[in-house]
Formats: sequence, C-alpha cells, structure tokens
Amino acid sequence: MSIRDKVAIIGVGATKFGENFTQDYSDMIVEAAYEAFEDAKVSPSQIQAAWLGTCFPDSGGYQGNAGASLADALSLYKAPISRVANYCATGTDAFRNACFAVASGVYDIVLVVGAEKMRDVTPRESLVGQLAETGHPVHGKGVTAPGMFALIATRYFDFFGIGRETLAKVAMKNHRHGSLNPKAHFQKEITLEQYLKAPMVADPLGLYDCCPQTDGAAAAVICRADLASTFSQEPLFVKGLGLANPVGDKLAFNPESDFISFQATKEAAQQAYDQAGIKDPFKEIDVAEVHDCFTITELVTYEDLGFCRKGEGPQFIDKGVSSLDGELPVNTSGGLKSCGHPIGASGLRMIGEITDQLRGRAGRRQVKGAKRGLVHNLGGLGAVTSVIVLASS
Amino acid sequence: MSIRDKVAIIGVGATKFGENFTQDYSDMIVEAAYEAFEDAKVSPSQIQAAWLGTCFPDSGGYQGNAGASLADALSLYKAPISRVANYCATGTDAFRNACFAVASGVYDIVLVVGAEKMRDVTPRESLVGQLAETGHPVHGKGVTAPGMFALIATRYFDFFGIGRETLAKVAMKNHRHGSLNPKAHFQKEITLEQYLKAPMVADPLGLYDCCPQTDGAAAAVICRADLASTFSQEPLFVKGLGLANPVGDKLAFNPESDFISFQATKEAAQQAYDQAGIKDPFKEIDVAEVHDCFTITELVTYEDLGFCRKGEGPQFIDKGVSSLDGELPVNTSGGLKSCGHPIGASGLRMIGEITDQLRGRAGRRQVKGAKRGLVHNLGGLGAVTSVIVLASS
Repeated sequence: MSIRDKVAIIGVGATKFGENFTQDYSDMIVEAAYEAFEDAKVSPSQIQAAWLGTCFPDSGGYQGNAGASLADALSLYKAPISRVANYCATGTDAFRNACFAVASGVYDIVLVVGAEKMRDVTPRESLVGQLAETGHPVHGKGVTAPGMFALIATRYFDFFGIGRETLAKVAMKNHRHGSLNPKAHFQKEITLEQYLKAPMVADPLGLYDCCPQTDGAAAAVICRADLASTFSQEPLFVKGLGLANPVGDKLAFNPESDFISFQATKEAAQQAYDQAGIKDPFKEIDVAEVHDCFTITELVTYEDLGFCRKGEGPQFIDKGVSSLDGELPVNTSGGLKSCGHPIGASGLRMIGEITDQLRGRAGRRQVKGAKRGLVHNLGGLGAVTSVIVLASS
Repeated sequence: MSIRDKVAIIGVGATKFGENFTQDYSDMIVEAAYEAFEDAKVSPSQIQAAWLGTCFPDSGGYQGNAGASLADALSLYKAPISRVANYCATGTDAFRNACFAVASGVYDIVLVVGAEKMRDVTPRESLVGQLAETGHPVHGKGVTAPGMFALIATRYFDFFGIGRETLAKVAMKNHRHGSLNPKAHFQKEITLEQYLKAPMVADPLGLYDCCPQTDGAAAAVICRADLASTFSQEPLFVKGLGLANPVGDKLAFNPESDFISFQATKEAAQQAYDQAGIKDPFKEIDVAEVHDCFTITELVTYEDLGFCRKGEGPQFIDKGVSSLDGELPVNTSGGLKSCGHPIGASGLRMIGEITDQLRGRAGRRQVKGAKRGLVHNLGGLGAVTSVIVLASS
C-alpha cells in the first residue's frame, strides 16, 4: 500500500538561515515551530506527537540527541517525541517517519522539526573536524564531503566533456534565486568572474560550488489527509515518499559505481513516482527543491530524477530550464548554495519552499501555477536519498 | 486509533552482550539480525524496510549515524533504512517507529536493529567522557548518569526510610537472573557482602548499583499482524506502545519534581495499558523487562508501572515478588545490571527476552505460563520512557 493521499501538510515555518549567533538551538526551534503553528492555525496543545531531525547533536552543545530537546524548547510535554537522523537526509526522513505514524491512524496531527546549530563551534569540534578525524571504516580519515563530491565532478567532466563553467551556472542561478529569499544565508548574486576567482576547496570544486555551514531550523505540521480541510484552506497532500540507500556508505569504493550518478536518487525517485502516479517527471513536476550540497550534485540530480536524460544536465542548466522563469524551476529558494545547510533543517526547509510555491505564497520567487512539487534530499555520497512529491490536490 | 493488534513480532536475535573486542559494530549487527531472520524464517531479501537504533555513533568509530551503517553491515540495499535515537530508550523508539510504518500499510515486513559499541574507546572519548565535558544547557558540565540517579536514591531513602540494603536486593536478584543467561555481560551471582564492600560511584550508588558499559546488538523482525501466521507458528502481538517525555531534560531542575518517581514512566505505561486494555498491571502482566540502569530505577519503576503502590517498591523486592519464582518476575534476563547497556541495543534485547518468555523458550529463566509481557525503557533522568505490552494472542 502507498502513503499517497493519507497525509496532508497544513503548516510550515522556518527561521532565517545563517549565522544565528543570537539564537541558541532551542530559540531556533521555537521560531520555526510557532511559525508553522500559526500557519496551520493550530495551538501547540493540539499536537499529539512530534519528530525531531538533528544529525549532529554534538555541534549544538549536545542538544538534539533525543526528543527531549524538542519537548523542552516548546514545552511540548504532552506529545511523545522521536528523534530521527539519516546524514544530510535527516529532515526528510523525520518527515517520512511522522507520515507513517499519521498514516497508521495512531495520531491525527503531529509536528516535525529539523534543527542544526553549526556555527557556534570551533572547526575542530565541527562536523568537518569530526569527519576529518574519524576512523570510519569506509570513509577513512580525511575523506571530507568536498573531497568525495569532487570525485564525482572530476569523473563527470571527463565523461561528458564539460568544465567548471557549467557548474558556475548552477551556482549563479542558485545565488540569483537566493537573492530573492529573505531567509537565505546568502542573499546576493554572484558573477562568473567571482566564481572563477574564488579559492579552490577540492579541485574542481571551488568556494562557490560548496554550500556553506549554517544555523537554522524548519518545521511542518502534518495531519491525516481526511482531516486537513478542518484545519487549513490550502492543505498540501503527500503523493509519494521515497527513501533509498542502495549503496550504503560505499559509493566511492564500489567498483561498480559509474561516479556520474547517484543510484539512491534514482531509486527513491522511482518509489515516489510510482506512488504518485508520475510517468514523466519533467512534464508533471512544476517546481523542485533538490540537494545542491555542491553544484555538481544538482547537475547530476537533474538526470537522476529523470528531469532530463543522462548527460543532458549541462544543457538543462545552459538553456535556463531550471531557472525561475524556466520550464522546471529548481531550487527557487536559492538551494543549499544560498540558504546554507543546517543538516536536520534542510529537508524541512525544502518542504516549506515547495509548500509556499504550491500555495502561491512564494512572493518574488513564485512559479506561476505550480500544482505539483518535488523535494530531494541526499545524505553522504549518495548513501541515502529521500524524494517527496507534494501536490495541492 | 491504537496500534493494538496491527503488528506482530515474528523473530528476535541478539549477540552476547559484553566486551566484544573481536566483533566490530557491523559484526554485531550481522549476528543479531541473522539470528532474527532465522527465528522468523525469512530471508533478508524479504525485508522491505528497516530501522536502526544507535544513540552515540561517535563511540563506535562513527558508525550508526545513518541507515547506511545497517545497509552496509547486512548488504540490505533494497530496504530503505531510518536511524532513530532517543537517549537510552533508543531501541524501543526505533521499534515504535517501525511499528507505525507497518501499521500504516506501507510495508508488510521490516527489520529493527539496535546496536552500540561502547568498549572500544578510551574513557575520554566515551559517552561518559562526552557527557562530563558537555556544555548542555540543562545537564551542565559534570552531571553524569550516576550523579543524576543518585539524587533519586537519596530522596527515596529519605522519604521512605530505607537504605542501601534494599537496593542490594535488586542487584542480587538481577545478578542471580543474569547467572542463568548465557548472553549476559556478567553471569555471576553476588553476595550482600560484595555489594556493600564495592566502591562507591555516586553516593548512595555503589558499583553494583550501576549497570556496566557494554557492547551488543539485538534485532527483531516484525510484520503486519494479519500476515504473521504465514511466517511464524508463534507470533507475538504488539498490544500497546507508549512513549512519553513529560518533563524533558529538566527533571533534576524542576521544582515540581518529587524525585521519587518518573512521570514519563507513568504516562507511557498509561498509554500502553489503555491500548492493551489493561486495568490491573500486577495481575495482568506475567513478566517484565524494566530499565534498571541503576538499582534505584528498578525500585521506582515497580511503582511507576503500577505493579505496586508508591512506597511499596521495597516490599515488592523484599518479598521476592519480582524474582524468577515470584508472582511478577522482573528482569528475568538479568536486566541492564547483568546484561549491560549497549544503549541502542537494550530495548530490543528486552523485547527479545519477553518474546522468548511468551514463547516458552527462556530455558532456565522461563516464567511458567507467561502470556503477556511488558518492556520498559527509560532515557535520560526520565526524559523519555517507552512502555510496550506484548502478548501471545
């Protein structure tokens, strides 16, 4: 049986993403959750259960390890709270588990919050520092995120004969979109010259190919689909909910990997499309938020999601198809590139952006007549991917 | 709507708990999961989704942060995998989320694994080291688990006029039970003299009041209740599933706390009893695994679960009611005291013990005619508690 049409989103909220030095972890949760409560027109006392998505509690003064961190922040003591973590797909997987609980009929209305505090720590204490020092048997020491995704870019460049100018177009598009988003970490356009002159991080990925480390929280209130109209004039319905981990942590060390695609995205998308009844995603999806942790990830993701064929990603960006005024706008929020990537929060921020788009509330970023949207959230080097399809009816 | 009778357990498995220096995190998962597969008579390829419960990935070489750690260990690449963490109730909350997914109808048969590697790290790198150094805004620096639970013991002693001799009886009972459990970390009885002579850890809690730090993994295969008989001759049914976090992380700093009970246990139990239709838990529960992270916790838990009235916990243990040959045997496995507490694994180990008991497979620990059992798993200083009621029909 599928999740289709069993669950509705009735409210979303988010803090501004950025260096939120004046807000602690709990402050951010309060801001995001109360915005979602107001949007859903529910009071906290109506929430029957909740899910918290935080990936690295250590980065946030040890908060976010358990549901208690959400309970304390919101005085949400009557709702049982779970914490879910799944690398950078933490936010969407928290949402997925909440959807199952609602679809099971056990709860009518629940809250999902993603939050991550990433700027209040020294580099050595940070995620990057941890990863760099870890003795993880697959990743090994020093294999950081830019280093891993640079392998994909190098291989993609070689295979399809493109160069950094193509990645620059992804970066410039997302910075352009981000300049229209008052909650983005970076709200500024960039030029090709700036892109090319910026320091290299992990060749061929430069500074503007990488999303920043950012503080933020985002939230959604969801309920049983058959009750949605009692809460909201404009509920959104969950049509498909895919999660896949077909290569685990081993992509970079798997001799079968082609290094030009993420199998996890293909499989999660297929699950979500099957549930939603989508045959041609390019024609049937109106707007998408995809996981541009690095510019190369967005390029590959166009192809893996079936928005275009393998190797056509460069044309997709060249022709402006994924721009705000294109045929299938991608990352209208500015993406991770402009918004930043507070890990647990990103998936829920994306869900919020698509919700705003499908309700016609995206302001200067509005995609006209958007009725069906997609969220794509990727963790590890394609270790786990979540694809969610939402629609207004 | 309740979870009652929607989900069945068809297989359980666990490693030996202890200093598993010859097994890494993945080895333990393989052993526990394959034992559960064999018990359920299913092949890994039949598993449609999975949940991993690990609380502190950092202690295990950074494994367990995402579902990918379970996918890689088992080559379980076709099943989407979530990770759940909720302090020391991590294992049971992973189980709870898996139950919701099955009850939603989205999956027919899923795997839940809890695993924690706690012995391969230096004290400074360990959980205790982390907690001692953390800047958590509620716990503060240096407020360790023995220190927190010692506050409860001190207050309980003062309020009810008992002393360490009563806690000794809990320790001796659980060591006696553990001596019959070939998978327990410690398989030896202890004397009152040993208990009293052992070093103090956090007054009034001595060495034998504290559960050890331990490696281990445990697993369960669950399925839709209406399909259970196609897999297993002796499925068990989930009758009630409670989770509560009514005070968050703040018990020790809440002026309303009485320090002689855990509100979270009372609320989670009430949820589970309501779902299971239990009015008198003492009469209707035949066997229970409760969270004896410290001996005082078990004593207080008798009362919070309604096995006896407030203040009657000491009589309950004095009269042997909770002993293997008593009216309501508690921690027939030896409890956390003897088995140890690999955090994510403990809840699933408890579920395994109750499953064995209700199927009449508990060997020398068997409680005759047990038909209905309870699992209680507590995290933080009562920050979160899970109560599960299982029955054989």
